[in-house]
Amino acid sequence: MIVKLGSIEAGGTKFVCAVGTESGEIIDWITIPTKTPDETIPEVLAFFQKHEIEAMGIGSFGPIDVKKSSPTYGNILNTPKLPWKNYPFLEKIQEQLQVPTGFTTDVNAAALGEYAYGAAKHTDSCLYITVGTGIGAGAVINGELLEGFSHPEMGHIIIRRHPDDRFEGVCPYHKDCLEGMASGPAIEKRWGKKGIELSERKEVWELEAYYIAQALVQYIMILCPEKIIIGGGVSQQETIFPLVREKVKELLGGYFTQPEVTEQIDDYIVPPGLENNAGIVGGLVLAKMALESK
Amino acid sequence: MIVKLGSIEAGGTKFVCAVGTESGEIIDWITIPTKTPDETIPEVLAFFQKHEIEAMGIGSFGPIDVKKSSPTYGNILNTPKLPWKNYPFLEKIQEQLQVPTGFTTDVNAAALGEYAYGAAKHTDSCLYITVGTGIGAGAVINGELLEGFSHPEMGHIIIRRHPDDRFEGVCPYHKDCLEGMASGPAIEKRWGKKGIELSERKEVWELEAYYIAQALVQYIMILCPEKIIIGGGVSQQETIFPLVREKVKELLGGYFTQPEVTEQIDDYIVPPGLENNAGIVGGLVLAKMALESK
Repeated sequence: MIVKLGSIEAGGTKFVCAVGTESGEIIDWITIPTKTPDETIPEVLAFFQKHEIEAMGIGSFGPIDVKKSSPTYGNILNTPKLPWKNYPFLEKIQEQLQVPTGFTTDVNAAALGEYAYGAAKHTDSCLYITVGTGIGAGAVINGELLEGFSHPEMGHIIIRRHPDDRFEGVCPYHKDCLEGMASGPAIEKRWGKKGIELSERKEVWELEAYYIAQALVQYIMILCPEKIIIGGGVSQQETIFPLVREKVKELLGGYFTQPEVTEQIDDYIVPPGLENNAGIVGGLVLAKMALESK
Repeated sequence: MIVKLGSIEAGGTKFVCAVGTESGEIIDWITIPTKTPDETIPEVLAFFQKHEIEAMGIGSFGPIDVKKSSPTYGNILNTPKLPWKNYPFLEKIQEQLQVPTGFTTDVNAAALGEYAYGAAKHTDSCLYITVGTGIGAGAVINGELLEGFSHPEMGHIIIRRHPDDRFEGVCPYHKDCLEGMASGPAIEKRWGKKGIELSERKEVWELEAYYIAQALVQYIMILCPEKIIIGGGVSQQETIFPLVREKVKELLGGYFTQPEVTEQIDDYIVPPGLENNAGIVGGLVLAKMALESK
């Protein structure tokens, strides 16, 4: 008999909910707009109550508390989406569905999906970065999610400003961190148009690659992931990949001699293997892990 | 009966060899100058052959091959110490001693020592950074060493140059990466004197803290370790700790609200609990891990 698993990808504008199998196939799914918890969560629960799922995996927008020993484990923390601030997300789902439930960030779930069934299958580690409305990244190391006192906040790392770039940055915390300089809203504010309308403007994508490559170099120096996957809106600009790869090689300066980051770099920095399904499939993987560690 | 374990801390100027127990106590030790492998390794082996050790842990200068599936696993790689280049370190030790042997970098071993018995005991994760002749860091996450396609090279991350700092940097690969700007040789070249002779020069340590804090912020954003330990020569300058902590808080910009990096930061960024023994004790922990996974 097929074991049915649940997955929630909770985003700022919509919740994607899916039921699938232990091998990552999706059987049924639904999209629910993100309103308040009182409006959205009953719809989410109603969907899953139609199915007999044996475990659940949640990949949520953040910041969230992922530290199992914490009294607020499973809560959404200090989000600007005020109705969700301090919402005990994990508790509300578990109390209704009564199944083992894994809980992590949306980008961690996407990393897990790509690791298990996408571009990073057959590796021991990967990093997934999404560049869109915000910038976030998650990593899987030896089959486990990378989490410490908190989930990472890799979108807010320090980068060097391009000497010709006078844009101040849009991050309310750090101004010109990576997210402040290279997220979708940063592109739109700097160039006066959305990224999608700037496809032909070479200088836009060269500057974008300049910043993304710096971030990848930091991730490589610190984590040495076996595969790097770039998702999110910006990854739809196919021209970005060769620009980023070239710049990463240049910035590494020949320091690493491993083929991953030298002659095989085209196969190292890649788009998602699961396209837009990395997060929702990752939730199924998380559910499976929750079931196994029950 | 006491299980005896061996530990080697292989550095550029000396090898420290120790025999100790499963609880990290050192029973006997010796220091051997680093000459060529033909001169040094027989002395190392002679020391261990006097003892009946049941496992061994090696923390070596790098770069080294730590990837178990690699054909050159256990070798020293492209080091400027030419007699050691491509030396099959792990193989030579194992073939003579015939015990399970763990193999990692010197900084990873130090991180492991601090995690098990030093400043980071009672945590699930820590990062150890040494700032001295070079800059390197290692991390333990959920009890395991952080390694991907290679061991990390966290000393070579990108940092922002201080606007008043015209020093070009000493890294032969990247010029003004962290190591290029903040290592002992960088301090000496920039200021014309060794760090130890500059203790009273406040501006030296403020600039040093400016760079180290940037590195720690990158490590925090990416890894969220539960404890950060600064070792190496620069950590002997006690004034550096409050300067680094203050700068880290400033750079984080209130983005994390966890107490580790806010009100408890004095207890978060700390000197080694094992003083100069972190690496050699970490080798004993590595030996114990090798024995358990045999």
